[in-house]
Amino acid sequence: MRQNEKISPAVIRRLPRYLRALEDLENSKAERISSGELSKLIGYTASQIRQDLNHFGGFGQQGYGYNVKDLKAEIEKILGLGTQYRMVIVGSGRLGQAINSFISSYSDDFRVISLFDVKEDLIGKEKSGVLIRDVACLEEYLRENKPDIGVITVTKEHAQEACDKLIAGGVRGIWNFAPIDLEGSPDIPMENVHLSDNLHSLVYYINHPEQI
Amino acid sequence: MRQNEKISPAVIRRLPRYLRALEDLENSKAERISSGELSKLIGYTASQIRQDLNHFGGFGQQGYGYNVKDLKAEIEKILGLGTQYRMVIVGSGRLGQAINSFISSYSDDFRVISLFDVKEDLIGKEKSGVLIRDVACLEEYLRENKPDIGVITVTKEHAQEACDKLIAGGVRGIWNFAPIDLEGSPDIPMENVHLSDNLHSLVYYINHPEQI
Repeated sequence: MRQNEKISPAVIRRLPRYLRALEDLENSKAERISSGELSKLIGYTASQIRQDLNHFGGFGQQGYGYNVKDLKAEIEKILGLGTQYRMVIVGSGRLGQAINSFISSYSDDFRVISLFDVKEDLIGKEKSGVLIRDVACLEEYLRENKPDIGVITVTKEHAQEACDKLIAGGVRGIWNFAPIDLEGSPDIPMENVHLSDNLHSLVYYINHPEQI
Repeated sequence: MRQNEKISPAVIRRLPRYLRALEDLENSKAERISSGELSKLIGYTASQIRQDLNHFGGFGQQGYGYNVKDLKAEIEKILGLGTQYRMVIVGSGRLGQAINSFISSYSDDFRVISLFDVKEDLIGKEKSGVLIRDVACLEEYLRENKPDIGVITVTKEHAQEACDKLIAGGVRGIWNFAPIDLEGSPDIPMENVHLSDNLHSLVYYINHPEQI
């Protein structure tokens, strides 16, 4: 990355898509790929792909294309993968459990170290090998265990409180699934997955197929 | 909407955000709101909000702002809410169950009419009042029940097959949670929720806080 260059969020959001394509290519034993072939695979134009990757140094060679393994390693490095991020999930209902289950089977780069809930019938149980603790102990747990990422899967009404505690407890990033825009901290990145927004966009396009 | 006007996907994706803000405003008994106040609430500029809404006819009045209830009703109408969308979920593991649970408590506009799975210990069970059926019966079920939306929560390996069957069975839209880009149909909208992409973007910003 060129120093002090601010990279547009749209570019950043395309990097994980490149990574998925390169993982598939590696699994199918492909050794190299041109930006044209990559373009066919993921639907961005070859010129966009070259521009995106140029922000980070290019990595391609004229007439050869990209080495699949090397480019994958470079993108992992840019993203900051290859180290383990320890996560806590606040809210152990179905969604919290689904995220926990997803993480446990997804990649060694991510590990859920504790679930939290307010419900007595959940506290003390294990899900995918992870203990559900009383949310009343969240602050103490954060102080002692310093997780990297806090995941919010509680209801809209309790999400801001969870967010405040996670940030006060020193997490480095927030992954929010509650259907509300939370007030975070300017230094702490927050990613939102708003399922209802996604579903509403889908419904719009169902009703306006000419706009697809 | 002006006839034949193609509205940018970015505008469409902001509409659900407006809707959420207006729901909150309605719940807090607000009757009207200026684009400036709406801007403070959701973080888009007032000029962007006015531009976005102008695509659909404006709805605001100089010096008065927007009537909360009316604007909410207009956005619901634009999106196509106010009618019930019947959904099937292919994949009844934790994620499928989490989506089912989310939909059942979310809004009367959406109703899951069946879950599907391949696992014998799941088939025949009910989750949030919805029966899990054998995925071998999916095609017949689609023919007989004509659901509007097909949700894909199976593994990456089985996602394309589920997608093909849903489209052949006549669904009007696909909501895909499998971490793969599926080949759909040009007429059938598809929304993707790629959790791993989201998590990777978060990790990037954790490692590049200067880029937030």
